[in-house]
Amino acid sequence: MTTSNKSTGMKINPDLAHERSKCSFVVEDFAEFWNGGKEKLEEKRWRENFFLRDPELKPEIPLEYLSHKEKFEEATRMSTIGFRKVRELRDLGKDGIDTYMALLSGNLGSGITPDGSPFALHYIMFLPTLMGQATPEQQAEWMGRAWSCNIIGTYAQTELGHGTFIRGLETTATYDPKTEEFVLHSPTLTAYKWWPGGLAHTANYAVVVAQLYTKGQHHGIFPFIVQLRDEETHMPLPGIKVGEIGAKLGMNSVNNGFLGFDNVRIPRKNMLMKNAQVEKDGTFIKAPSSVLTYGTMMFVRVVIVRDMANYLSKAATIAVRYSAVRRQSPINPGEPEPQIMDHVTQQLKLFPQIAKSIAFRMTADYLWNMYNQVTTELDKGDLDRLPELHGMACCLKAITTSDATAAVEICRLACGGHGYLSCSSFPLTYGFTTAAMTYEGENTVLLLQTARYLMKMWLAASQGETLPPTVAYLRRNFKSTMEAKRPKWDKSIPGIINAFETCAAG
Amino acid sequence: MTTSNKSTGMKINPDLAHERSKCSFVVEDFAEFWNGGKEKLEEKRWRENFFLRDPELKPEIPLEYLSHKEKFEEATRMSTIGFRKVRELRDLGKDGIDTYMALLSGNLGSGITPDGSPFALHYIMFLPTLMGQATPEQQAEWMGRAWSCNIIGTYAQTELGHGTFIRGLETTATYDPKTEEFVLHSPTLTAYKWWPGGLAHTANYAVVVAQLYTKGQHHGIFPFIVQLRDEETHMPLPGIKVGEIGAKLGMNSVNNGFLGFDNVRIPRKNMLMKNAQVEKDGTFIKAPSSVLTYGTMMFVRVVIVRDMANYLSKAATIAVRYSAVRRQSPINPGEPEPQIMDHVTQQLKLFPQIAKSIAFRMTADYLWNMYNQVTTELDKGDLDRLPELHGMACCLKAITTSDATAAVEICRLACGGHGYLSCSSFPLTYGFTTAAMTYEGENTVLLLQTARYLMKMWLAASQGETLPPTVAYLRRNFKSTMEAKRPKWDKSIPGIINAFETCAAG
Repeated sequence: MTTSNKSTGMKINPDLAHERSKCSFVVEDFAEFWNGGKEKLEEKRWRENFFLRDPELKPEIPLEYLSHKEKFEEATRMSTIGFRKVRELRDLGKDGIDTYMALLSGNLGSGITPDGSPFALHYIMFLPTLMGQATPEQQAEWMGRAWSCNIIGTYAQTELGHGTFIRGLETTATYDPKTEEFVLHSPTLTAYKWWPGGLAHTANYAVVVAQLYTKGQHHGIFPFIVQLRDEETHMPLPGIKVGEIGAKLGMNSVNNGFLGFDNVRIPRKNMLMKNAQVEKDGTFIKAPSSVLTYGTMMFVRVVIVRDMANYLSKAATIAVRYSAVRRQSPINPGEPEPQIMDHVTQQLKLFPQIAKSIAFRMTADYLWNMYNQVTTELDKGDLDRLPELHGMACCLKAITTSDATAAVEICRLACGGHGYLSCSSFPLTYGFTTAAMTYEGENTVLLLQTARYLMKMWLAASQGETLPPTVAYLRRNFKSTMEAKRPKWDKSIPGIINAFETCAAG
Repeated sequence: MTTSNKSTGMKINPDLAHERSKCSFVVEDFAEFWNGGKEKLEEKRWRENFFLRDPELKPEIPLEYLSHKEKFEEATRMSTIGFRKVRELRDLGKDGIDTYMALLSGNLGSGITPDGSPFALHYIMFLPTLMGQATPEQQAEWMGRAWSCNIIGTYAQTELGHGTFIRGLETTATYDPKTEEFVLHSPTLTAYKWWPGGLAHTANYAVVVAQLYTKGQHHGIFPFIVQLRDEETHMPLPGIKVGEIGAKLGMNSVNNGFLGFDNVRIPRKNMLMKNAQVEKDGTFIKAPSSVLTYGTMMFVRVVIVRDMANYLSKAATIAVRYSAVRRQSPINPGEPEPQIMDHVTQQLKLFPQIAKSIAFRMTADYLWNMYNQVTTELDKGDLDRLPELHGMACCLKAITTSDATAAVEICRLACGGHGYLSCSSFPLTYGFTTAAMTYEGENTVLLLQTARYLMKMWLAASQGETLPPTVAYLRRNFKSTMEAKRPKWDKSIPGIINAFETCAAG
């Protein structure tokens, strides 16, 4: 029986060591499967060691004891060290996508900035928007500087009075052909940008989404690159009103901000013109297809599903370990107090969360692969699977965020009072998961969009059309569903899948 | 249409004013009903004005921006002013039970100490324990000083390793007849008291629950009054190890603490001896009935049910007001954005929470009256309804805390991103409601106790015994349930109650 941890040398609680010794599978096999193979697992361990063993990345005082201002300052300090280490990795040729994903997610990121990174939006929204919507010339101008953090950006779309209904945004970008500039303006208080992460104190640039007016005509919403602060002094530029929206349930080191414009002028070339364009004289040229701008939005939703799998497995791990170590309440009078995991009520709480965390991870991988495939097809001009990906991303973002939130709370409450302590990590984890129910598409709205997609597919099934792979079961089951026939119950895995499909189609 | 508030003079949002003007009942009538009559309503308004308009009770910086230490200091400052004002009320003869309840609950209290009062346990646990378990001589010694806050107490029962299973507590109180003292000792780390509110920095006294040993015999757990700190210097007394357990999901100004004893001696008269006693020579005298010590525990659960009704109505009020003011997403294309309350999805979220908050309040009043009645009967030696009250308090504590927690989150999420901001009050409200799922009887445990009570009553019903009033329906429905008969559906209120009783009995 192991009684001390191989890598840290810390003593292991004997109840925990005993539970581990009873494991019915080879843990290393599972770890390889879980991390996508032996090589990825080794990389992950090397990476965790590289970041988390750095003494500079140990906070002197845990975040939850600091004031709001100090939380932000500490997170900035930690992030800066973190990204300096990323540059070291780059020099070693080791800075792959996995490193960035780990740093910005609940995985490695929560070790460095436990209450969210002030730089998250720079990597998750600003850079991907440049990649997806900037012309090659614009990319040449901005990407290098953004990639090396010489400029820090965020993505400013939501306004104080406008979130879900994007067409209702009030910020205007009016083209002035005389100076070849756009004039950005916030006509009302509700037009102020509200929520962008990093906007309050970190970012000096932003992609700003605004209503485009040119030659007296309104053309809808488009993205613009706007410099917010002086690159040397970090002071807001003239006409820019920027600040923080205040303390929140969680993610308090993200420094979500507000942003108002008082007739701020930016050069014409600052409109992101990969899709739609405005010419020197103010002529507006429509994008070939409006779907092309969905890219960033879907990318973020795909990332969220992956995040939820991470947070849920973290919560389940903490609760299961605690349940092995904590002893309470004899099952039969006179017996000693058992590990609480031996109580059936505890098993009923936690075992489904373990299973769910594995199902979420596999779902996240499936969606990630689908996203990459559809994006590759998109680049070739093939838009066939876009509505399917959009439907899947909507549905899975809503389901995984709400289920993970509920699951984190089940895990927390299963640890009794100790789960309420900040040092259990549950409060911050809850702050992250529940936030995701609202941001990047409010869940009720996404569920309605999912329903709309499914109704459309059901109609297509009724007309005998071929359906995309993930909803093809609707057509397979169409006849039997309409006739209220149920297939014979079969306990095999295909049988179980068939049963789920039959229920879903019904 | 009202456009400014009568008492504050603040402008009222026109959408909100319009909604209020459509009210189909007389608001003042409801306010009187809600507050228990015209007189109580007037008292409440006078009290709120007296406390909340005091400029000293306006924090300079909202709590959520302060460090953990500053949160505690600010809450102590606010509480001190609050209780000084209570003394002013006392001089006016206006310090009734309602004032204390309001100050210590989510009602008025959250206006003064939004993240919990450092003095709450003094009033909710220390004083009631003295009232319920001290002899008249002990009351004469301690009650006056405690009541005037010359000493501040808390209630130390739960230990780091022991919560639900009280018999498992490890702290010992060993009687030494030579000096006529009890020796309090924490034999292990898991024996440290853990969680008592106010213990970390506020209290200088505590009721400590410990395993009693006298004449070499173990007699079970009993309460002792222990002085923790010097009354002048506030420094811990010799052998007392006291401090804070750390930051939490919420209630961060409550200063929950830990407490260890290194052979601390207290006089014999410090055992609370209203029920069991230890004589000078160490002879142990059993309590006439063990049920007599249930008092404080049931009192606290009854108070929790009332608290949950308060928190839920607060959350529902915030969400409903926001839904009148916020406009988003046209219902039909081309229409203007409606108040979000006009969306059916929003109504389905919020209307049940309004109804629930009213049902909770009426349930809390019912339980409060039942508690007072049963306590009066207890004082006369009549224990008949004690198991019923215990069953009701267990069940309603568990149900109202878990339902209120879920309801607060429904309300918060219905306010979109704005509900995630601390200034919405939802995060602190959630911290309070979810904490109550764990403290004072963990909900899973209380539900099992409820089930046990109901099974006992069902058995009694099967044997034709007379059942207590709240479960009498089990007997009324026993025959029809066993024969799986369902009464005819009747839409009247007695019909609905009958339907609920039939379902519950089935």
